[in-house]
Amino acid sequence: MAERKRHRRGGGGSARRAQRGSLKLEASRFIRRNIPNFEILDAEALEIIETNAETVLEEIGVNFVENPAALARWRDAGADIRGERVHIPRGLARRLCATAPASFTQHARNKARNVEIGGRNLVLAPVYGPPFVRDRAGGRRYAVMADFEKFVRLTYMSKYLHHSGGTICEPTDIAVNKRHLDMLAAHMTLSDKPYMGSVTDPERARDSLAMSEILFGRDFVADNTVMVSLININSPLTFDATMMGALEVYAAAGQGAIISPFVVGGAMAPVSVAGTLTQVLAEVMAGVAYSQLVRPGAPVIAGAFVTSIDMNSGAPTFGTPEAAQITYGAGQLFRRLGLPYRSAGAFTGAKLADAQAGYESANSLNAGLLGGVNFMLHAAGWLEGGLVASFEKFVMDADQLGVLHGLAGGVAVDENAQALDAIREVGPGGHYLGCAHTQANFQNAFWRSELLDYKPFETWDEEGARDTEALAAARVDKLLAAYEQPALDPGIDEGLRDYVARKKESMPDAFS
Amino acid sequence: MAERKRHRRGGGGSARRAQRGSLKLEASRFIRRNIPNFEILDAEALEIIETNAETVLEEIGVNFVENPAALARWRDAGADIRGERVHIPRGLARRLCATAPASFTQHARNKARNVEIGGRNLVLAPVYGPPFVRDRAGGRRYAVMADFEKFVRLTYMSKYLHHSGGTICEPTDIAVNKRHLDMLAAHMTLSDKPYMGSVTDPERARDSLAMSEILFGRDFVADNTVMVSLININSPLTFDATMMGALEVYAAAGQGAIISPFVVGGAMAPVSVAGTLTQVLAEVMAGVAYSQLVRPGAPVIAGAFVTSIDMNSGAPTFGTPEAAQITYGAGQLFRRLGLPYRSAGAFTGAKLADAQAGYESANSLNAGLLGGVNFMLHAAGWLEGGLVASFEKFVMDADQLGVLHGLAGGVAVDENAQALDAIREVGPGGHYLGCAHTQANFQNAFWRSELLDYKPFETWDEEGARDTEALAAARVDKLLAAYEQPALDPGIDEGLRDYVARKKESMPDAFS
Repeated sequence: MAERKRHRRGGGGSARRAQRGSLKLEASRFIRRNIPNFEILDAEALEIIETNAETVLEEIGVNFVENPAALARWRDAGADIRGERVHIPRGLARRLCATAPASFTQHARNKARNVEIGGRNLVLAPVYGPPFVRDRAGGRRYAVMADFEKFVRLTYMSKYLHHSGGTICEPTDIAVNKRHLDMLAAHMTLSDKPYMGSVTDPERARDSLAMSEILFGRDFVADNTVMVSLININSPLTFDATMMGALEVYAAAGQGAIISPFVVGGAMAPVSVAGTLTQVLAEVMAGVAYSQLVRPGAPVIAGAFVTSIDMNSGAPTFGTPEAAQITYGAGQLFRRLGLPYRSAGAFTGAKLADAQAGYESANSLNAGLLGGVNFMLHAAGWLEGGLVASFEKFVMDADQLGVLHGLAGGVAVDENAQALDAIREVGPGGHYLGCAHTQANFQNAFWRSELLDYKPFETWDEEGARDTEALAAARVDKLLAAYEQPALDPGIDEGLRDYVARKKESMPDAFS
Repeated sequence: MAERKRHRRGGGGSARRAQRGSLKLEASRFIRRNIPNFEILDAEALEIIETNAETVLEEIGVNFVENPAALARWRDAGADIRGERVHIPRGLARRLCATAPASFTQHARNKARNVEIGGRNLVLAPVYGPPFVRDRAGGRRYAVMADFEKFVRLTYMSKYLHHSGGTICEPTDIAVNKRHLDMLAAHMTLSDKPYMGSVTDPERARDSLAMSEILFGRDFVADNTVMVSLININSPLTFDATMMGALEVYAAAGQGAIISPFVVGGAMAPVSVAGTLTQVLAEVMAGVAYSQLVRPGAPVIAGAFVTSIDMNSGAPTFGTPEAAQITYGAGQLFRRLGLPYRSAGAFTGAKLADAQAGYESANSLNAGLLGGVNFMLHAAGWLEGGLVASFEKFVMDADQLGVLHGLAGGVAVDENAQALDAIREVGPGGHYLGCAHTQANFQNAFWRSELLDYKPFETWDEEGARDTEALAAARVDKLLAAYEQPALDPGIDEGLRDYVARKKESMPDAFS
């Protein structure tokens, strides 16, 4: 109760300060789709892939490495264990997946920022994992904690990002065994949106839980999901001890996990779309089933991070037709499992936030929306195959996420939307700009970019003929200058600082 | 028969020369979709919009201005004529549309380049109409005939453009009353892909027919569709004499026409999506019905060029959620009319071929593919709201059209595509790069850009850190340097030259 009270005060203070600021702080609710999903696989294709995935699990099996407890759980559940190989009898994994919820709430410290993951919803989160950052002024360089904090602030201020994410970039100036503490503290204190926990070691998952208990209260965390964390499967068909260790911590605590193969098609999966979908489905079924062995009902998200390889250079490619097909197909397969779906993002292989970045990111964002994705990591800031978090790309992507919101709203056909009186009023050869219907509706009729230049050529030219990257750089500066930290109870703030300090002091720096 | 013989010879010579050239000349067949359409309107919404469109036609009516013959045709068909206003009784327009073919063949002088417009197909054509061109070296300037010819050559060499288009840019150095002759001659002699006719005056439509008769033979043109031309409706609800005059010439000759409202939502149509779809449907039904009054069975394409207005600057905007909704919805409405569908394109409001151009164009291209578009004008080269034809953007868009081809192919699930043996061979923890399935399939497994840089960062940086516009500029130069004209019977070539020369001499230059 005490937490909930502080919580409301924080939200109110934040809103007041935002009103005083130079920029209006707006936050869209997560997307509730009012449009259908695009389904690329027909009934026959679905059945073939599902049958083959069961064959993979039973006949080939999956490896749970250096994890005797996992092997024991699988044995007890009825799997056939040979060494570290788990052969899962046909139907068992699917049955185990059935206890995972189809939809769940992830709580934020500001209740207005809670997200509902699953169903017809789409929750958008920033890029995750790049060791480098890039901006127009400073070029490409290793990311540091100051960059990370800037991205948390930008995410907090972005209307269309519902989630603060996790490792938006790697703060390489902090020791590997300590940086998760600073990242979590930044998400918790610089933003009031939901966030992700650390997965690089089970101990760091426990830190994430402990800090969340300081933020939300121990009882609240025991009863509610306050984190969703990214558990990668080591494709093909391998579940390593570090990631499974983190999953075990989170699942046991009722905290959310994205269970997601990381696949470069042609390298970690077959070169064909159907073959990749088969392996991805088998991997997700095994991983989700395992989470339910740890704790039936643990909230999980079925993930698919899939890119294809350029066979000439070996580089991963993005925004490709094969990636779109997999995004659409995986959505169908995971919905038939009754699981929330994570995929897509503002993906690109481009080294700069240029036209290539725009095409590829839009291809992937559109596939994610129409493919029924429920949780989209990497929705803003991704550049250079995920090696770089770009400040300019971040605000470009965040702006384009408004297009997804608008499209997902569907087509209203109430009497006002039908506009028959407007067509009558204007008539053949007339003009709608001044008509009553336009006057009444124009402010909310069309989505409007807050970044792009809609001015006439001559004006744009006089103002310096700026490209989108230049406009984005200006917007980054404007947002960061206007940032105001959301209020947080001083006791909680101190509690977090204290935890981080004590934990850091308890061990020497390690850089691996 | 004589034409057909020459025709085959031309194609063979062209193929041989292309093999000798430094670039492989490839031409994809038009897209045959193996994926479903995305349908955004439910049954109730479709019925409301269709009912309202009939109300618009009956109660409000449409204007056929300065066209007594059109009014007479409508009167004879059972419409109620008041002045220039045609009130079309409920159901009449839809009944008249029924004689238009659901699909038709547009012939090219190279039979391998024939296109089938309708059904599950998608035919891609370049940008149409810009008075300006832009390239990296020369900036933005008025288009001239030399630019036009370059674009015809680039279209001819673009694997994924199936159609040579029409006014790719306006050759402003040629008199308005003569430039159509030079444009047609360029399409006919510099390319062997299908092309569009002139619509700016009924007399120019007749020139287009006469020159096509020289190219294909009079008998062939009498029996076959060799042109598809763009007839814009003057929204709201107005059919002007010039465009209808051109439509009358083409329909009477059995030549194809795109009958297409040109709508900026909020200006020429209501600000709501449902209201815009209502008006667009009414306009298309009236226009297509009229084409069938001229000649039942005349091949037509139902068009929708729809953008929304930025209410602050008055500028048209592109790649917006509302535009996508209209693209999806109009496709459903036109398919229920049994007509081929034209919409979408590589649309953008960007002044440069930058990230904005990429995002917006990809948004529109994806909506066009998934929305069931059969003929996509403006599929390459569009910039700055259609004011500019950009050389760099042209090759960028043309490259991205490969993504549409790949996605439309659907997901194969034959035994090779299932790849179960590959998953068996590689097993948990293995690698697919060397496996037999990858070796057998990698060359055609993934779509590969012919433009974008997939090299590692360090290599790319050493090579000048070029952005996509720079890569595109280099590709434009490379393509134009490698261009070789497809063979044409010298008699036909001379016939065309002679027609153009005589026609030009017959009248003084006019610049309006």
